[in-house]
Order: sequence, then C-alpha cells, then structure tokens
Amino acid sequence: MSLLRERFGGETGQEMQRFSSSLAVDLRMAAEDVEGSLAHAAMLARVGLLTAEEGEEMARGLEQIRAELAAGTFCPGDEQEDVHMAVEARLTELVGEAGKKLHTARSRNDQVATDVRLWLKTRLAAVDAALAELIAALLDRALRDGRILMPGYTHLQRGQPILLGHHLLAYAWAVARDRERFRDAGRRLDRSPLGAAAMAGTPHPIDRRLAAELLGFAGVVENAMDAVAARDHEQEVVAACAIAMVHLSRMAEELVLWSSAEFRFVALGEEYVTGSSIMPQKRNPDAAELVRGKSARVLGDLQTLLVLAKGLPMAYNRDLQEDREPLFDAVETTLASLSITAGMWRTLTFRADRFESELAADPSLATELADFLVGEGIPFREAHGIVGRLVRHSEERGIALSALAPEERAAFHKALGKDLSDWLDPRQAAERRTSLGGTAWSEIERQVTLLRAG
Amino acid sequence: MSLLRERFGGETGQEMQRFSSSLAVDLRMAAEDVEGSLAHAAMLARVGLLTAEEGEEMARGLEQIRAELAAGTFCPGDEQEDVHMAVEARLTELVGEAGKKLHTARSRNDQVATDVRLWLKTRLAAVDAALAELIAALLDRALRDGRILMPGYTHLQRGQPILLGHHLLAYAWAVARDRERFRDAGRRLDRSPLGAAAMAGTPHPIDRRLAAELLGFAGVVENAMDAVAARDHEQEVVAACAIAMVHLSRMAEELVLWSSAEFRFVALGEEYVTGSSIMPQKRNPDAAELVRGKSARVLGDLQTLLVLAKGLPMAYNRDLQEDREPLFDAVETTLASLSITAGMWRTLTFRADRFESELAADPSLATELADFLVGEGIPFREAHGIVGRLVRHSEERGIALSALAPEERAAFHKALGKDLSDWLDPRQAAERRTSLGGTAWSEIERQVTLLRAG
Amino acid sequence: MSLLRERFGGETGQEMQRFSSSLAVDLRMAAEDVEGSLAHAAMLARVGLLTAEEGEEMARGLEQIRAELAAGTFCPGDEQEDVHMAVEARLTELVGEAGKKLHTARSRNDQVATDVRLWLKTRLAAVDAALAELIAALLDRALRDGRILMPGYTHLQRGQPILLGHHLLAYAWAVARDRERFRDAGRRLDRSPLGAAAMAGTPHPIDRRLAAELLGFAGVVENAMDAVAARDHEQEVVAACAIAMVHLSRMAEELVLWSSAEFRFVALGEEYVTGSSIMPQKRNPDAAELVRGKSARVLGDLQTLLVLAKGLPMAYNRDLQEDREPLFDAVETTLASLSITAGMWRTLTFRADRFESELAADPSLATELADFLVGEGIPFREAHGIVGRLVRHSEERGIALSALAPEERAAFHKALGKDLSDWLDPRQAAERRTSLGGTAWSEIERQVTLLRAG
Amino acid sequence: MSLLRERFGGETGQEMQRFSSSLAVDLRMAAEDVEGSLAHAAMLARVGLLTAEEGEEMARGLEQIRAELAAGTFCPGDEQEDVHMAVEARLTELVGEAGKKLHTARSRNDQVATDVRLWLKTRLAAVDAALAELIAALLDRALRDGRILMPGYTHLQRGQPILLGHHLLAYAWAVARDRERFRDAGRRLDRSPLGAAAMAGTPHPIDRRLAAELLGFAGVVENAMDAVAARDHEQEVVAACAIAMVHLSRMAEELVLWSSAEFRFVALGEEYVTGSSIMPQKRNPDAAELVRGKSARVLGDLQTLLVLAKGLPMAYNRDLQEDREPLFDAVETTLASLSITAGMWRTLTFRADRFESELAADPSLATELADFLVGEGIPFREAHGIVGRLVRHSEERGIALSALAPEERAAFHKALGKDLSDWLDPRQAAERRTSLGGTAWSEIERQVTLLRAG
Repeated sequence: MSLLRERFGGETGQEMQRFSSSLAVDLRMAAEDVEGSLAHAAMLARVGLLTAEEGEEMARGLEQIRAELAAGTFCPGDEQEDVHMAVEARLTELVGEAGKKLHTARSRNDQVATDVRLWLKTRLAAVDAALAELIAALLDRALRDGRILMPGYTHLQRGQPILLGHHLLAYAWAVARDRERFRDAGRRLDRSPLGAAAMAGTPHPIDRRLAAELLGFAGVVENAMDAVAARDHEQEVVAACAIAMVHLSRMAEELVLWSSAEFRFVALGEEYVTGSSIMPQKRNPDAAELVRGKSARVLGDLQTLLVLAKGLPMAYNRDLQEDREPLFDAVETTLASLSITAGMWRTLTFRADRFESELAADPSLATELADFLVGEGIPFREAHGIVGRLVRHSEERGIALSALAPEERAAFHKALGKDLSDWLDPRQAAERRTSLGGTAWSEIERQVTLLRAG
Repeated sequence: MSLLRERFGGETGQEMQRFSSSLAVDLRMAAEDVEGSLAHAAMLARVGLLTAEEGEEMARGLEQIRAELAAGTFCPGDEQEDVHMAVEARLTELVGEAGKKLHTARSRNDQVATDVRLWLKTRLAAVDAALAELIAALLDRALRDGRILMPGYTHLQRGQPILLGHHLLAYAWAVARDRERFRDAGRRLDRSPLGAAAMAGTPHPIDRRLAAELLGFAGVVENAMDAVAARDHEQEVVAACAIAMVHLSRMAEELVLWSSAEFRFVALGEEYVTGSSIMPQKRNPDAAELVRGKSARVLGDLQTLLVLAKGLPMAYNRDLQEDREPLFDAVETTLASLSITAGMWRTLTFRADRFESELAADPSLATELADFLVGEGIPFREAHGIVGRLVRHSEERGIALSALAPEERAAFHKALGKDLSDWLDPRQAAERRTSLGGTAWSEIERQVTLLRAG
Repeated sequence: MSLLRERFGGETGQEMQRFSSSLAVDLRMAAEDVEGSLAHAAMLARVGLLTAEEGEEMARGLEQIRAELAAGTFCPGDEQEDVHMAVEARLTELVGEAGKKLHTARSRNDQVATDVRLWLKTRLAAVDAALAELIAALLDRALRDGRILMPGYTHLQRGQPILLGHHLLAYAWAVARDRERFRDAGRRLDRSPLGAAAMAGTPHPIDRRLAAELLGFAGVVENAMDAVAARDHEQEVVAACAIAMVHLSRMAEELVLWSSAEFRFVALGEEYVTGSSIMPQKRNPDAAELVRGKSARVLGDLQTLLVLAKGLPMAYNRDLQEDREPLFDAVETTLASLSITAGMWRTLTFRADRFESELAADPSLATELADFLVGEGIPFREAHGIVGRLVRHSEERGIALSALAPEERAAFHKALGKDLSDWLDPRQAAERRTSLGGTAWSEIERQVTLLRAG
Repeated sequence: MSLLRERFGGETGQEMQRFSSSLAVDLRMAAEDVEGSLAHAAMLARVGLLTAEEGEEMARGLEQIRAELAAGTFCPGDEQEDVHMAVEARLTELVGEAGKKLHTARSRNDQVATDVRLWLKTRLAAVDAALAELIAALLDRALRDGRILMPGYTHLQRGQPILLGHHLLAYAWAVARDRERFRDAGRRLDRSPLGAAAMAGTPHPIDRRLAAELLGFAGVVENAMDAVAARDHEQEVVAACAIAMVHLSRMAEELVLWSSAEFRFVALGEEYVTGSSIMPQKRNPDAAELVRGKSARVLGDLQTLLVLAKGLPMAYNRDLQEDREPLFDAVETTLASLSITAGMWRTLTFRADRFESELAADPSLATELADFLVGEGIPFREAHGIVGRLVRHSEERGIALSALAPEERAAFHKALGKDLSDWLDPRQAAERRTSLGGTAWSEIERQVTLLRAG
C-alpha cells in the first residue's frame, strides 16, 4: 500500500492518490528504469559501495524484472506510488536485503531524470529513422514523378508553372532541417543525471562517468541541481516536434486539397482513406486530416511544457511531474504522424496530366514574357508595365496570351514581335529556370543527390 | 500613393490598407533591406545583368539611403505599401532609370526572406553576447559569493544545505545550453534565399552563391520554393527564446522570493527596484517581475508563429506576413530580458549570514545521518528508517537533531553513538558532497573553469 | 523627469526605463483615464473630500486635458513614467494646488483597473456592432443568393447538395453565439473598481457607487483586493476574441478556397484582393489570408494573458502590466477582422451556376436513394447496402447514377424500379430536407427571421 | 472487424487503425450514446418511422446495454471502429433486425455532437457543484479565521495590514465569476444537434424538438450544418476551465509560499502533503504544486482546441475528432483541481499570530499617516511627501515609525504631533478601511452574505 493510502484510507486519500499518481504514465519508462538501476548497481559494486555478490544478486534480480516486463507479467497495481517503488519492491522480493541497498547514493529525482533521458534517446532514434524514411519517400517520388507539370501556387492562386519535383523537394529540405534539429536536441540531452541525488550530490565515492558510460550516455550533467531541475531538453525536443508537425500539417493540407473533386491531382492510397457504406468509391482523406489535426495537439503539448516550468523556483517542484504526459504524447504523436505521412507519399497516385493543358492557357505565363524582355535589356519595372498592358489586352479580347499573334504583341513592344513560342510553353518555362534552386529538372536532380548524401 | 489607395480612395480602401500594411514593422529591417539590395546589385553587375556603370550608380544610391536611414532622415510615409517599395522608390529618385532594374531576377518574396535572415543574424549575435554576459555575471557571483550557505529547496521546502555557488551554477549551465541552442538555430538559418525569386528561380544567369557571400551568409537555401515558404528557422529561434525566457522567469521568481521580507536573502540593485513616494525605502522587485511577465509574452509569440503556418499550403500565403511582429518581439524581448537579468545578478547584494544559523538546527540534516549510516554498512532503506525514528523522537522532545546527546542517539542504532558533530554541521554537510556535480566548493570551482572554457 | 531617470541618469537607468515603460500602450487609454478622474473628482467633491471650488477647478482642468487629447495636442514625452502621472502633472500645471488632491482615496492600481474596464466597455460596444453587421451581411447574402446550389463538403469531399443559404446561416449562428459571448463578458466586467485604492480600500468616506454611476458602470467590484488583482475579465474577453477569430479563420479559409482557379466559386470584391503589376487581372485573396493569419495572433494573445497570471500570488504584481498589450491587440485585431470579413461577404460575387450541372452527375445522390428506400420501409443499414451495390455498379459501367435505367436499378431492389427522377435531382434533394434546420429554403427563411429577431 | 482491418490486414492497416481510432476516448461517452439512442428511437416511434413494437424492442435492447455499461460488462474490443458502431452492433445482437433501423434519419456526425453535449451537461453540473463547494470553503474560513491580521502583499512586498478574510474573499469573488462563466457556457450549449444528420437535415418527418426534450435539452441547434461543425461551445467551456485554473494556480502558489519555512503562515492538512521516509515531519505541499502544474495542462488543452479548428472549412473534417481528448482532459482536470483546492482550504490551519507583532513595526503604516494627514486637509501629494521624509528619518534613526515620539513627528508637520496610536496600530488600520469593499470586518461580513445569496 502506498504511503498515502496507508495514511488516508478514506475518500480524500483516494481522490488525492488519483490526483497525484503518475504510475500509468511512468509505466512507459519501466524498461528504462530497470536499465538505469542495472547501471547504478554495477557502478556501486565497482566502487565498493556494494560487495561483488550484492552486485551480482541485484543484477540477477533486475534482469528478471526486465524479462517480466518484456513478457508483460510485471504489472504493478496502483497501490504502488510510482514505477520506481514498484521496481524496488519487486527487486527486494526477488533478492532480499540487497534490494534495500539499490537506492544508495541515488534519489528519485536523479532516477526519474535518467529514465526520461534514456526514453528520449530511444525514441529520438526512432524519430530520426522516421524522418529519414519520409525524406526518402519524397525523394523517390521526386525522381519518379517529379517531371509532372503543375502550377506553383501563391495565395492558393496559380503562379508560375513548376515541376512537381521542385515542390516535393521544398518539403524534403524542410524535413531535413527537422532531422538536424532533432539531432541537435538529442546531442544536447545525451548526458547522464544519474548520481546527482536529490540536487546536491552525495558524500559517497560514486563514479558518475562510469554509470553514464554503462548507459550509453556521451557524458554527464555537470551540476547536480541542474540535473534534476532542468526541463529545457524536454522543451527543446517538443519544440522540434511542434515545428515538424507544422511541416506535416502543411503537407496534409495539400493532400486534402489535392484529393478534392476540385483539384483532383492525387488519389491517396487505399490504406489512408475511408469510404462510406453507401458510397464505396468515396475517398475521404482521413489520414491527412488527422495528421493536420494532431499538429494542434503537439502545439498544445509544447505550451503545456513551457507554461509548466515558467516561474518555478529551484530545484524540484511537484508541478514538474506533469511534464511526462505532454512529452510522451508529443514524441509519440510526431512519430506516428511521420510514418503515416511517409506512407501517404509512397502510396498515392499523381494525375500526371491534370494541369498540363490548363497551364498552356494560363496568364501566369506573363512572368515569362517579362523575363524575356529583361533579357532584351528592358528595365524590370518597365518590362512589367509593358506585359501588364499586353495581358489586359489579351483578357479584353478573350484570347489566351499564347494565342495572340506576334504582330498583335509587337504593338506593345517591338521585341514582343519575335517568336515566343518557347517562352509561352509552360514546360519550357519551368525548365528554363535553371538558377540555383530553380524548378528546372537539372536542379531537382542536383538536390536529390545532395539530400541523399545529407 | 500605394496601389491600394490609388484604387480605393474611400474608407474601405483606408481600412484595408491599415489592415494589410506591414510598413511599421518592416521599417525595423530597412537597413537589412538596403544591404540585400547592395549585394543583389553587385551580383547583377558581376554577371552582366547590369552594366558596370549601372551597378556603380545603384551602389551609390543605396549607400546614400543607408546613410539617410542611419541619420534618421529616411522616413517613408504610410502611402508606401511596404519598406521595399519605399527603398526602390527612393533609389529611383536618386539614380533614375537604373533604379528600375534593381528588381531584376528578384521578387519581394526572396527579398523579404533575405531581410529577415539578415536581421536575425545581427540580432542573434547580440543575443549570443547577452547570454555570454549573463553566464559571466553568474560565474563572477559564484566565485565571489559562492561559499555562502543556504538551504537547497525542493517543493519550496528547505532540503539539504548547499553552497550558493552550486545554485548559481545550475543556472549558468542552463544558460550555456540556451547559448548552444541559439547557435544551432543561427547556424541553420545562415543561408541566403536571395535569387529564389517568387518560388521557382529565374531564367537569368544569376550567381546566388556570390550574393550570399557578399552578404556574409555561409551558404544558400538550395530550393527556391523552400526559400520563400519556410518559416521553421523563425519558429526555431522563437522556441529558443521561449526556452531561455522560461529560464529567466525561474531566476526572476527566485529574485522576487529572495527579496521578500520573509526570505530577505538578497537586496536588489537600486536600478532594478522601484520605491514609492511615501515609502522611500520600499524596494519592489519590478525588474524581476517584468522579466517573469515578459516570458508570457514570448510564449504567446511562439504560439502565434506556429499557429500561423499550421495547415498552410505552399508556397507563399499572405498570412505569413504576420510572422515578423511576433518574431521581432520575441527576439527583442529576450535580448532586453537577458541584459536586465545579468544586471540584476551583477548589482544585487547577498545577505551572507541569512540562513547559516537556522540551518544548524534544521531537520534536513537527517539526510546526513542516513548517509553516515550507509557508510557504516547499513542498507539505504534501513538507514532511512532508523533516522526517521530518530527525527520523530527529536521532534517530540523538541530538541534539534544536532543537540541530542550521542547516547540518546545510540538508542536508535549503536553507530549513532559516535561523534557526529562533523556530520551535523551544515557547512561540512555541503562540503562533503564532492561527487561529480555535488555542492562542494571544489566542484563549483571545477565547473566555473569548464564554463569559462565553454 | 521620471523617478527612474532622476535616480539613474546612466545607461542602465535608460535601459530599465525602456524595459518597464508602459506609456506607449497606456496612451491608448488616456481618454478613459481622464473620464475616470472626472468622476473621481466629482465624487470627492460630493462627499466633501474636496470643496465645491476645488471640484470645479479640477473638472475644468480635466475637461481641458480631454480637449487637448481630442485635438492631439496632449503628447506626454517619455520622461513621464506613465499616462496617469502625465495627466496629473498636466492638471497641476493647469489648476495648481488642487491637482495634488486628485489622488485622494485612489491609487494607481484601482485607477488603471478602472481605465481598462472603461476602455473595454467602449470597444466591446464596437465589437457588438461589428458582429451585428457581420450577421446582417451573412443574412443579406443568404436571402439574396441563398438558393444557389452547391455541394455540402465533409472532409473537403463533396457530400449532399445543399443551398448556399444553409451554409451561410451555419456561420451566422456561430457569429450570433460570439455576440452572446461578448455580451456575457461585457456584462460581467461592467463593475467599477474605482475606490478600491491599492487593495484594501480607504478610511476616507468615499462613495464608490456614485463614482461607478457617473462612469456608467452597472455596479462596483465588491472586494477591493479582487478589484486590483483580477484579470479574468480580460482573459474572458480575449477568449471570446480567440473563439470569434477561429470562426473568421474558417470563413477566410473557404473564401481562399472558393477564390482559387480550382473552385472558382466566388470573385472577391476589388477592395479585398491584390493584383500584381504584371498580372492586373490577378486576384490574390489577401484580406482573407490576413484574417486567417491574424487568428494566430489572437490565439497568441490569449496564451500570453493566461500565462501571465498563472501562479501569481495576490495582489498586484508588476508582471500584470504586460496585460494591456495582448488585450488591446486582441480586441483591435478582432474588431478589424470582423469589419473586413463583413466587407468581403458584402462585396463578393457568387458564381451561381458553378456547381449545378456537376451535382446532377454526382454520386453523392446515393444518399437520396437510401433515404427513398428507408421511406419504402427498408431498414437503414440494408438500404445503405443496396444502394452501395448500385453505386458500385454505376461506377463500373461508367454511367452516372441519375442516368441508369429504372429496370437496371430494379435489379438491386424492386422499389428502385420506380420513377426516381425527383430523388435524383440535386435541387429537389436539397429542398426535400425540410426537417428542422435542414437545407430546404423554407428552413433558411425561418432561420433568417429568427436571427433578425435575435 | 472494422472496415479498416477488414480491408487491410497488414501492418499499415493496423498502424492506421491505431492512428485513427477514438474508441478509448469515446468510451467515456458510452452512457451518453445510449441515452441519445433511446431518445432517438422513442422519437422515431412517435413520428411513425418505427412501429410501436420496433420502438419497444429497441428501448428494451438499449436499456440492457445501459445496464451492461453500468455493470462494466459491455467492453467493446478495438475491432470496433468506434463506440457508436459498438453500441449498434450489440443492439442488433440483442433485438435483431430492428437494430438496423436505429440509424434512420441520423448520422454519426449529429450522434457524436449529441453525445458530447450530453457529456458536457453532466460534467458541468459537477463543475458547478465543485465551484459552489470551493466558494463555501472560502467563506467558511473567512468567517472562522477572517479576523487574522496579515500583510497585504503587492510585488510580494508587505503593504498595508489587512484581515485574512479580505484576502479569502478576493478569491471567493473570482470563483463566483468562474461559476457564472461556466453557467453561461452551459446555457449556450444546452441545445440538441440530434436530427441534423450529416449536415443537411433529412427528408424524413422527424421531430427534433421532441428528441431534444426527451434528452433534457433546453432547445435545438437551429441549423444542421452548424450542429455538426460548431466547436465554439467546447472552446468556451475549456476557456472557462483555463481561466478557473489560473485562479486555482494563484491560490496554489500562495499555499506553497505560505507553507514555506520562510512564511510559515499555514500548515496544510495531512491529506494534501507528502513527507519523506527519513523526515516524517516534512510537509511538501504536493497537492498545491500539482494544482499549479495542472493549470499548464489545461492551458495546453485550450490551445489545442482552438488551433484544431483554426482555418478548417465547413462542415465536418476528421481533424475535429481530436477535440474530445483535450476537452475531456480539461474538464476532468479542472473538476479534480477544484475539489482538491476546496479540500486544502477546509483542512489547513492558519498560524493566527504569525504576522501580528511584525506588522506593528512595519513601515507600511506610513500609508496610514498619509491618510491621517489627508483627513487633516493636506493635499494628497503633499501628505505623501511629508510622511516620506518622516519615514526616511525613522529609518535613519533605526526606530520604528510607531515608536517615534509625537514631538519628533511634529517636526515634519505639526498635525503629526497628535496622538496617533490608533493610526499606527495595524489592526485599527485594517478596521478603519470601511469603504465599500475595504478590508474592515464589517465589509467582510457584508460580502459573505452577498456571496451566500449569489
């Protein structure tokens, strides 16, 4: 029975226990807790705070708890205050007295801090892989379908014709930065708080570096109070999640748009849509909508984590227990959303011919003519003025820009009398933009190479 | 007159102009806008899109606008749509026709994106210096006053006695991570979007790397759509601001607490307090309260920036114009708060003797006795039990732990009969915690060296 | 010279003054400050704390300041600590000694609290009018264009055919609730804090109800500490702003979608779009995008206001000074966005025939057939199954549901052999939905009447 | 098996099911779902869309499911897509064919919307009771302990002496406004969406008002699209939660402060503190810290709900499924926090004599002298100046204001030579503030009466 329940059998005690319990959440770090204890015990034995036998006993017991966890047979009831007490109680059951020494030179503060960082290290590895897979999916589609012509949108209005690959790579670069951001966060948090004790260190001759090494940390948190009070590493990870989710929400918005009857530019994979019993052919883009919706959730998680720590004095305050739920939720939600998004990109079908013919008649080719005139030596602002008048003329006559006769164009500037069929062809318009990062196919190929190397 | 005003003289036109104008905000990037144009013009001249004379003319005109800006004589009225048009208009006034060529191979999209990144580079350099100064202030105080004894708090309850330096260094490490975080963000955004044009690049033979180099960027944004649509670099900077402000809010909270009549542990510097006309001696910790309050503002800015971009399709949408106000506000607020906080630490006075005598009688020394018993070979959980009973006994008898006679203690465990005066001295209790990162003075000195090297 | 500047001529003093000054923001409440002082002075005179002459003197001086404010000739420099000191200083200049009695039985705390509530009362009246105008615009369009047939969307997929009026009224009801919400908030804050003094009231025989009445408040805040420490009324107003802005962002999203080349369902009014110098016909829906973007800003404001007050002890803390900027910003942004949105609805053109023909061939009519079968006594789930098979059949044959021969349909259920042309006509499908709140025109008219009465 | 699982046995199908399932969350509304179906079935029978027997069959089946739910024997597995399908499936099991008619004239959209509003009505009743109990707890303590003298704080600096009751009532009024706010929200959402169907109503002759009445709603949502698309009622409830939680966080902060060794003004009840095994007397204010921390969580929930709906077009989008988790979390967290907070106020002990003697020597009595002088006809600003000089003098001499001899005071103004012992007695200083809402006991009693009536 927990201390609380023991003292307060009544309703208030139960209410308070429900209010303060973190068992359900912390169970997700049970494996990490056992890892931490294994390393701590090994270190204690190495520096002589445990005898060799005690160390071996403890390791044996902890290995068994690890096995029970994996097998799903270790299920502490809610009479346990938290997962750490549950593990210690089970250990004492398994190895007797030696179990009572496990907590030497350690407090729950540094223990929990260690568990969270171990958990994060594992999950960030998974996030890294998911980001890599999303980039790979985007690059694969860019190479496979990237030559499809589409309008580049600004203000959701059609602008210059671009290649689909150009659009897909814009996302790939954003995701590549997300990956860097998570790696920076991961590198920064890769330090062991174990041995910080409550906040002041310990008089026992422990070896924090050894424990850190056994756990695979790249180093130790250098100040014991910082080790238990810091939450910036969690905030940084969740900020990276929020930024990544905003990227995913933008992709999701486009997939929803492109799936509409009005755009009809993509058909999402069967796994990612839902139909209705009455309209079997219906393809609601639920997965994309959910990704977009879940970005809101991660933004909320980030706010919670930041607000939680705002204005808290040093060192540990119980408020901070509330950090795990938004942290876990943000990381897991991001991970799932990344995987779903990569799957959507991998399985959708682009309608290659959807925009091609429409673009040939689009007034957005006006920009091409202005660029042509600039090439002829006309100052930019003037070129814009000339073409603007031509466009208005074409509108008034109801004839597409590309269908006006050269002599009709020449009335606006004699250079416009030249053969401009190349300039007024949308595909050539796109391919002409070979400046670094432009939409030309050569630039797309160059970027794919760069990103694959990245 | 702006396009809008020209077309709509009426009230709606004016209302819409007020609603959509970003002039007031963008004026803060006027210097960066001129820098960007200077580099763009130089590049255009180098690749032959301007003649050498045109290039020189333009440079001359832009230099003059730069001088006017510095002198405060360039003040575009709100008849200008934005700062970019205002600069171009002034340039054309100064150098005539050549001014109309400035916009060759550039759009407002990449121009604004460049201005924002240039602005950020300058301000992040200032943030870096402010963070360095805050760390320096904390380290200086740690060395000067760090041996002062104080209670380490958890739950705002007194826990183990610690040295003040230990507490100050916990903050210094947090700020050092903030500095790394800003540097990572700064490195990631140090890429030039200039030449991306509207989103698709340009058919003109520009040299984006050259322009980037002239502006001091470490590289270019590799994809033109990404160059104009990305906002993650802004979100990352503001996330770093928010995390740093949470750190400052925690310091501020402590300075407010420590300034109260109840704690009376510090006297803040005169510059950072306000009195009242009637109570001249009153010392309200306004600066600390404002820092704490301003953290809320930066959290709001972060939320705005993330929500703004959530669910936006590619590429530019006018929503994104709303990014500058929260971005500028967050960075400037953080910068000012860092400087004020460093100033508070530099100028406050610690009341060295405030806690020393109280700590000698504090039950928090119980932990020392448990550590002593563990050293005597008693398992941790048992040691805690024994000392717990001793503490209850001392409470009931109304005698401080340190005042109990050895034989009285021995009744709880014979080892407690030994001379424990060293263990029950709060200063020695702190100094004994020499484990890596512990509160002992040697560890404080070690960390100061590390942080100064960092 | 302000107290701060007086004491600290140096750089720190100036930095601190900039950091702590609220003058720029508070100037927006200068008129309210003068109102408050007029009422306070009148009350002081009525209860005998001023002589009748002093009262008249003061009123004369304050009236003059009011006139100067209106004329724009009262411009306190930043040597004034805040707007309240500036007004008092000017008053003493104008009326001499009597000015020094203005602050009797009043502190800056209750003075500022009063100003904010007066400001809010004025602005909430404007918000109420703007909401009413938006509802009126929606109702007018519903009556004028409401019979236009369009697809009802779910998941941005076309669902059942509906009348445009049904869609517009969904928004009108939402805005009507916004209006109620603001009124509830306005009613709750309509209480005067004046006379609460610093937080404890005053020993002087003041008449707070009289001052409240003179200022047009419906009552007084009953507890003096609550009067100066409460911020929930501000949070509530900004929450109402945020909720209203989410509604506006949803309308804005639709206006952006409907303006796209793909939907082309509306043409926004000239005032609310921007073109480009080169494509004069271009109609970027900037106003709608800005409304959508500004919703992010108001969400950030709300977060700031809530975080600001979180965890603050009683009563006044300087953090709370930071409340005005997000409060004013949220209210003014909402007000402007409401007005712009109403203007967009009033001036746009619907393309009446845009969807009509497409809907006739749409598989979404399947729902109609299911409803028909239910009317024939077939259980709902079975009806859905039957129609699902029919739809699949029509898809496979490549023939629209409405073009299948009755005998072909009868193979799926004999009732389907009947003449179903009414059921397969999209307009009749919409008009048939006469259940309360359904999309039938009669229901639209009923709701317009209700909302106009509302 | 769910549609998804049926179609996609593989890993992607399972991943997607996990990603999109809302079963775990929706199970919390299972009881409401059954209520809704009972009313719907009864209405269908009344209007003849079911035969009387079918209606009775269905009622019988649904009553049984209700009983199974109450008994905990109805536990749909995750092969069910959602709780609604699970109920329908069980119903068909129980009553056969008739079950298939349950969904006549109803869609999942209006069904879920109804469930959420029913859930909210139940929970808001609980919230109302919890708010009432918190007010009662505060009023009881105000009457019992309200005469205790304490410093009124601003800037966490001691200001005027006040009575504890004055402080407690400031909170009571804030909570009373919270209660009003929840009631306004509850009244606004008390309308039935049932019968809105997917968004367009239904051609069947249903009676929505009857169904609403059977469910206890005060009315119906008048527009079917609004009925399924609106989320402002949820946002409003969670905004009320957030505002209430900010109030609770302020109380919690004070309880933490007052529990510290430095303030030692309260001893929290045993149920609401935790000790440590080694320091049994330790009283960490965990409950208060958790309440403060949980306010962050509710602020995050509010942001999630607002961001979720921002920029969504009409009508239903799958994003909106994510609304329930933050909604339920915010309401349940607020409910628990209210109850815990009331419990803390009921069970804590005030240390009545903690501040009394200190206040007698406090310079904050300076305000009293200024008020005295104002009563003697000295203008406010002058009175402040005179007392300021006196206070400085007393500081320099190191003698408390109340200990200066009358003749010594008279040197600053002759009126100060009078007997001022009443003015310099902190209790009389508090009791003298009898202005409406002042800290005098008579005002406290008046307010308790008002609040009890409220």
